[in-house]
Amino acid sequence: MKLAYRDLYPEFAAALANLTLQPQQQIVACLGGGADSQTILDLLDRWRSEHPEQRYLAIHLDHQFHPNSGTWAQGLARDCARRQFPHHGEVLTVAQGNRVSKEAAGREARYQRLTELADADAIMLLGQHRNDQIETLLLQLKRGAGPKGLAAMAKQTDAGQGAGTQTWLRPLLGVSKAEIYAYAHHHKLFWIEDDTNQDTRIERNFLRHKVVPVLEQRWPQFGASVLRSASLCAEQQQVLEELLTAQLATLCDASGALRVDSLRALSPATQRALLRQWLQQQQATMPSYAQLEQIREQMLYTSNDRQPCIEWGRFRLSRSRQRTLQLSQR
Amino acid sequence: MKLAYRDLYPEFAAALANLTLQPQQQIVACLGGGADSQTILDLLDRWRSEHPEQRYLAIHLDHQFHPNSGTWAQGLARDCARRQFPHHGEVLTVAQGNRVSKEAAGREARYQRLTELADADAIMLLGQHRNDQIETLLLQLKRGAGPKGLAAMAKQTDAGQGAGTQTWLRPLLGVSKAEIYAYAHHHKLFWIEDDTNQDTRIERNFLRHKVVPVLEQRWPQFGASVLRSASLCAEQQQVLEELLTAQLATLCDASGALRVDSLRALSPATQRALLRQWLQQQQATMPSYAQLEQIREQMLYTSNDRQPCIEWGRFRLSRSRQRTLQLSQR
Repeated sequence: MKLAYRDLYPEFAAALANLTLQPQQQIVACLGGGADSQTILDLLDRWRSEHPEQRYLAIHLDHQFHPNSGTWAQGLARDCARRQFPHHGEVLTVAQGNRVSKEAAGREARYQRLTELADADAIMLLGQHRNDQIETLLLQLKRGAGPKGLAAMAKQTDAGQGAGTQTWLRPLLGVSKAEIYAYAHHHKLFWIEDDTNQDTRIERNFLRHKVVPVLEQRWPQFGASVLRSASLCAEQQQVLEELLTAQLATLCDASGALRVDSLRALSPATQRALLRQWLQQQQATMPSYAQLEQIREQMLYTSNDRQPCIEWGRFRLSRSRQRTLQLSQR
Repeated sequence: MKLAYRDLYPEFAAALANLTLQPQQQIVACLGGGADSQTILDLLDRWRSEHPEQRYLAIHLDHQFHPNSGTWAQGLARDCARRQFPHHGEVLTVAQGNRVSKEAAGREARYQRLTELADADAIMLLGQHRNDQIETLLLQLKRGAGPKGLAAMAKQTDAGQGAGTQTWLRPLLGVSKAEIYAYAHHHKLFWIEDDTNQDTRIERNFLRHKVVPVLEQRWPQFGASVLRSASLCAEQQQVLEELLTAQLATLCDASGALRVDSLRALSPATQRALLRQWLQQQQATMPSYAQLEQIREQMLYTSNDRQPCIEWGRFRLSRSRQRTLQLSQR
């Protein structure tokens, strides 16, 4: 994996310039230890010298999945000390359910703790790159996801939390792993090679070693194409949600109740999408596909001499004599 | 590639039972020569014995890509004769542009000629199966397609043509190649093994031999998941088009002119989608992304003391003093 060195700083600086930063607003480098997040740290360190008006923090959470993780944590702390870059490191305990993989549980716990440790309006920088995005999209495909899942990781996500909104940014999402390694070598960065990345029993590693290289060797542009597919899926998802919201606004009465008869001219798929969006707006637990079909058929197509009512979880959906839907809690 | 035999007839018969067939309506088996379309022929032959009220035809077009294609054509004709199944075979000349691959040009020419040879309201049966669908979706990904392309092949497409509508059906789309081979062996069908299927210089064959088996070996459910992703993409595309049409109906005046100011509250992505849909409804050549951005900015955001006008291809788009868009031909 050799590639001519290219300075990633202009691209990184452009991504940050896109944000409207307040003085003293915190920017956080989320460290994993690999070449990707150490490249983020280095780029942010360079940016810091030009922007003393912001506050900075590097966070490393050690979930102790690897026997050497303590040594890694020390190395990362030393690297930050050498740079005089503010650093917070701590051990993270990951509760392991049997519903998700160890990796997924670790990721979720990490995001949760990072959210808590950073300011409520912090900019959170993540190291994921183009190869991660390819793997994520292929994993979504393996799960049978629709466009929402195939959109994979967003370049930018704004996550509301209490007082403020944290902005999660992936400035390297369009950059290949090879380019990141070229940068890390050129700038003589400190980073850790996690040998469990070679373990192809882990699904993501299987794709990384056995599938993606085969595709990229045949089609050098494969990665860029997948990124384009992902962002077209994200865009379509956004357009769809906006149109569903606009359409619902014309279908609901002043109290927010849904007039079902106006749905009847639409296709079953669009009816389902509107019903889902309406339930989501009211923070209902999403019914299963079978339940949704039951809702659609009973609420839209039974005559007025019946008063259909469907219950799932804590929720009850009923139709009034005026043929509008109301959601209530049991 | 061994799999226990399972009779595909009930699934096939169910797919045909879904259609509303008129007596004497023609059902066409589109033969390629492989085990897949020969399985279609065999299933249709079985169905024929129960449905003498329909008319039947098997069509084979020989585009002479393979030196043995003449022998193949004779074999297929003989197999139909043995079955006493009406058959039409002819040589197809494929004009080769440099814009598409030989395979794509052949496919397009074949569909075109099949359309002409069949009745205007014929049911056209195609042999594509689950493995073809996986390959198609991966090829779309390699091209950077959005949800519309990732929807891959439709199980059913109704194509209007002159007087009637031909229905193109892929009854085996959910069936794996291994199951088709098991069926073909069990029923001792005649079929042709095209040795160019081994040529991995052809993109589809590369996926077939070098990528999909690796994925299916790791995840036996991979194929079923990809089918689910494709059909979710198709469903979302359908919902989106329906919502765009509904939304446009509220945004256009009686003459079909688009009131631009009502677009301004929407996101740029939704504005683009609505503009594209509006242009499509008027059968305009689709502008490029850059042209569309120019349309969006000038038509929506320039003040009324200017009369913006944009031209591309044969088309001219202008904004009236009432701030509605009109499309005309130059």
